[in-house]
Amino acid sequence: MLIVMSNTATQAQIDAVVAVVERNACKARPMPGGDRVAIGVLHNKGPLDAALFLGLAGVKDVIPVTRPYKLVSREFKPEDTIVSVGGVNIGNGHMTMIAGPCAIESEEQAMTIAGLVKEAGATIFRGGAFKPRTSPYSFQGLGEEGLQILAQVREETGMPVVTEVMDEQTFGLVEEYADIVQIGTRNMQNYSLLKRAGKSERPVFLKRGMAATIDEWFMAAEYITEGGNHNVILCERGVRTFVHHSRNTLDISAIPYVRNESHLPIIIDPSHAAGRRDQVLPLSRAAVAGNAHGLMVEVI
Amino acid sequence: MLIVMSNTATQAQIDAVVAVVERNACKARPMPGGDRVAIGVLHNKGPLDAALFLGLAGVKDVIPVTRPYKLVSREFKPEDTIVSVGGVNIGNGHMTMIAGPCAIESEEQAMTIAGLVKEAGATIFRGGAFKPRTSPYSFQGLGEEGLQILAQVREETGMPVVTEVMDEQTFGLVEEYADIVQIGTRNMQNYSLLKRAGKSERPVFLKRGMAATIDEWFMAAEYITEGGNHNVILCERGVRTFVHHSRNTLDISAIPYVRNESHLPIIIDPSHAAGRRDQVLPLSRAAVAGNAHGLMVEVI
Amino acid sequence: MLIVMSNTATQAQIDAVVAVVERNACKARPMPGGDRVAIGVLHNKGPLDAALFLGLAGVKDVIPVTRPYKLVSREFKPEDTIVSVGGVNIGNGHMTMIAGPCAIESEEQAMTIAGLVKEAGATIFRGGAFKPRTSPYSFQGLGEEGLQILAQVREETGMPVVTEVMDEQTFGLVEEYADIVQIGTRNMQNYSLLKRAGKSERPVFLKRGMAATIDEWFMAAEYITEGGNHNVILCERGVRTFVHHSRNTLDISAIPYVRNESHLPIIIDPSHAAGRRDQVLPLSRAAVAGNAHGLMVEVI
Amino acid sequence: MLIVMSNTATQAQIDAVVAVVERNACKARPMPGGDRVAIGVLHNKGPLDAALFLGLAGVKDVIPVTRPYKLVSREFKPEDTIVSVGGVNIGNGHMTMIAGPCAIESEEQAMTIAGLVKEAGATIFRGGAFKPRTSPYSFQGLGEEGLQILAQVREETGMPVVTEVMDEQTFGLVEEYADIVQIGTRNMQNYSLLKRAGKSERPVFLKRGMAATIDEWFMAAEYITEGGNHNVILCERGVRTFVHHSRNTLDISAIPYVRNESHLPIIIDPSHAAGRRDQVLPLSRAAVAGNAHGLMVEVI
Repeated sequence: MLIVMSNTATQAQIDAVVAVVERNACKARPMPGGDRVAIGVLHNKGPLDAALFLGLAGVKDVIPVTRPYKLVSREFKPEDTIVSVGGVNIGNGHMTMIAGPCAIESEEQAMTIAGLVKEAGATIFRGGAFKPRTSPYSFQGLGEEGLQILAQVREETGMPVVTEVMDEQTFGLVEEYADIVQIGTRNMQNYSLLKRAGKSERPVFLKRGMAATIDEWFMAAEYITEGGNHNVILCERGVRTFVHHSRNTLDISAIPYVRNESHLPIIIDPSHAAGRRDQVLPLSRAAVAGNAHGLMVEVI
Repeated sequence: MLIVMSNTATQAQIDAVVAVVERNACKARPMPGGDRVAIGVLHNKGPLDAALFLGLAGVKDVIPVTRPYKLVSREFKPEDTIVSVGGVNIGNGHMTMIAGPCAIESEEQAMTIAGLVKEAGATIFRGGAFKPRTSPYSFQGLGEEGLQILAQVREETGMPVVTEVMDEQTFGLVEEYADIVQIGTRNMQNYSLLKRAGKSERPVFLKRGMAATIDEWFMAAEYITEGGNHNVILCERGVRTFVHHSRNTLDISAIPYVRNESHLPIIIDPSHAAGRRDQVLPLSRAAVAGNAHGLMVEVI
Repeated sequence: MLIVMSNTATQAQIDAVVAVVERNACKARPMPGGDRVAIGVLHNKGPLDAALFLGLAGVKDVIPVTRPYKLVSREFKPEDTIVSVGGVNIGNGHMTMIAGPCAIESEEQAMTIAGLVKEAGATIFRGGAFKPRTSPYSFQGLGEEGLQILAQVREETGMPVVTEVMDEQTFGLVEEYADIVQIGTRNMQNYSLLKRAGKSERPVFLKRGMAATIDEWFMAAEYITEGGNHNVILCERGVRTFVHHSRNTLDISAIPYVRNESHLPIIIDPSHAAGRRDQVLPLSRAAVAGNAHGLMVEVI
Repeated sequence: MLIVMSNTATQAQIDAVVAVVERNACKARPMPGGDRVAIGVLHNKGPLDAALFLGLAGVKDVIPVTRPYKLVSREFKPEDTIVSVGGVNIGNGHMTMIAGPCAIESEEQAMTIAGLVKEAGATIFRGGAFKPRTSPYSFQGLGEEGLQILAQVREETGMPVVTEVMDEQTFGLVEEYADIVQIGTRNMQNYSLLKRAGKSERPVFLKRGMAATIDEWFMAAEYITEGGNHNVILCERGVRTFVHHSRNTLDISAIPYVRNESHLPIIIDPSHAAGRRDQVLPLSRAAVAGNAHGLMVEVI
């Protein structure tokens, strides 16, 4: 953290800032520049709150320098994390294709689609049993029956299955049936759920929050890894912007950034980014060309 | 919903769209205009998914017309909802002042602050016992001990208390101690938590998600009211934008919009909108002048 | 345009809205639905302002239906526009590669880079002579000397050249030297400049505004085509969002959307979207895979 | 500027960064921390481009520290700038009320409205003669005739008038009639226009770009002041966000931030922020309470 003082800051104000830094068990290193003094803050464990300093007299700006995440960073673990599940590897340099319907509606629907996506090259099957819905009046998923159908799909096709978990109550149930447990965009900062996922033996498929910075996304993954579960797969699904011509804006820059900063694999979900069928194919191609580790696509 | 056809759409394409509308138990009303046909969709219960139509041949655009929420709308219930708790009314035309520390750290800290904010005009006390933290390495709150301190504050000052609940597991515990149960910005679309709140006898203080549209916020409130709990208080706390000079951007337009569209009270939280102390006062004044039902302010 | 009335709107209020519609030379078609009346507005030339109706008693919502652009739409002209310049075609199904330095700094610099990019496959050379700079203290470009160097590059390499024009004063000068005239992101809604471009015989390279919707971008192109210049090339260069890990967020969905809605070619500028060198290659690949008509890349 | 090195950066990589800093006429000050080295860059005149360093081996991050603006900063000039025009002061602690129609349509319309707004407390009259329109098919303003009507309003009511200038060609004309020259949101980064405004003897009313950071807005003002014209009035008119319930989101935090950072007066335009009449009054009240120096309101 760097604390930038006003060009009119007095020595007493600088000393007061140094005192607050030291009270928070950090070292302060004042650096006089041409116009003003900046104070480097060293050896802070975890993030210090900028608000501690922004209110102090003579302080102009507080600039975070070090990243708040550790276990998920490539600096901490330089080699790629490869998640292996049911004979499929994610993050090992091959494109992993995950496909399936939005919601599991019936055995017949699931089996038919599973056959089609397997033939088309998918190696992991997706389908919702518990569905997070904007409206309480919408179909909320088949629940355990949906999970049983997913297990049947796995048995008949050999494809491991991924499905979303919405709360701790049903986590054990989802874990029992699913090969990969998905945490959805709306729950990316549901910390109780993240802590529970940290204790799971299943890999976790962590969607980016719809307006989350990559730092916040990494911190959500840090909750899971800090809990002991190192098999986290990141999934970019578009972020909320001012545009109207697509439901969200797919953030392709997230791919190189995540690959540089972290060892975790990154999958792209073009379906939720686009929100309209005619954009899914171009976004999928762009994601592959942009060097994602895989795709998760919804099919009807 | 209005389905706008391309100006080259054939009659067969129009008929196909009408068929899909009717298969979804709605009525289709094609309206030929100067250039093209638009098809009105009538009598839909709950929201129809635009994606059903966007992929069909000849369809140019799908425009939602009716709002997806009902119980929280002023059209459904024209008179203001007034939430009464511990002798304090929220939404009755007086400014309700809610204040307290970010997190409860000790009995002494809580009591000292409670005395100060009461003297300054606050009638409800706030303080976090379970804290949602971006980092797993940050202090996560005192938990039940914090709740007990809140209960003591109520006993000694007479002020009802509001505190955040983070999951269903601890909901019963929070309910037992708190007068108002808060659902935080990161959990605004945690539907399992919203359903549990719908069964609570405590009023619910529902913060807006950091990138939620007001429709999505209303739908979150609809989950709670549909569950049977009509005492919902909405809280605007700034939305995420491209700006850097404040942590979020306080959405003052939300006040008149919510008051027109809904009967629920709306409180402003300037502290999380600003993220810096020197902006809290101007934002608070702006919120009062903008006709909010109250303020929730953090004090150190 | 569709005007949605409140469910409590009276017949007199509906009649008053119809009267305003007719006073604006349009036809009103009231459509009674289950809950409320919606009023279709037909035969409006150009966009009607929603504000005309939003203030009227009983009006709940005003929803635009038809698009405001015409000449640039694919409905108006179904076949692709192919811009031909100096033996290079843009929009004909081949990837057009445009490359060069940010600013022209010297003849030697320009010639060296031109040789390298030509060898690497570029067919059009770019370079700034008049530079729009955030700071008045930054280098503002070589001006006419830069244009002369561009002309030399064309002469020696055979590549047509594109460079930015910043105002009407220097438009004639830029036109004289450049094969393609660029209008930058900050001038996308500089209507005086757009009108001048409409009178030019040079193709216009129109960058999207940094927070422009695609409708606004199309309307900027409409200014140029309406003035008589049909050779407009659209360039997506990232939009401003809340993210920090890249300067802007490249909007890949713009490619399929523009190709569906318009006949104009669309080029991607990954350099300004990324703002950092290590993201330019992945974004470039994504743009090609996403079906852009070409790339414009800055090289140092 | 602070250059943060990777924790695996070698001494040679650090030396290479230092060399680039020095080649750009700055001083480098490497600071070894617990995990990594950060390099402070001192004595840079004007902004250094982060891209210079982001591509270098071993560089993890580049963080700007000092602000790029100077003349408009309160550090440079601590006392408030008060703009005096036609007997009215802006920025002297009183609320300045600017009001008038969007566009001047006729003498009768202008006079009628001028009478009403004067009676209601306005001291400056606004009205558009040259109108920036999204659509080339919309009414573009009366031009010089509109300016003449404005001059008549001034003569008859005594109120100074403000109107928008769209290009350098008509700048002299606008200057001749108007007391204050407005630069609109779409031209905030039209640098040729800003430079021309810097040579004007009229105060300049500079609207914030619809997605401009405050730094960019200050830099636009810096262009004008650097040109010699110190009478700049800043006007916040809402920024573009993801919300739908208002046209833009009014950024109230801009008021305290601008007042802290700069000596220039700040006016709020609630009309363009809201885009709907029923929000103008609450936003106006909020702006006054938030400590703006004045309001600019459109009346029909």
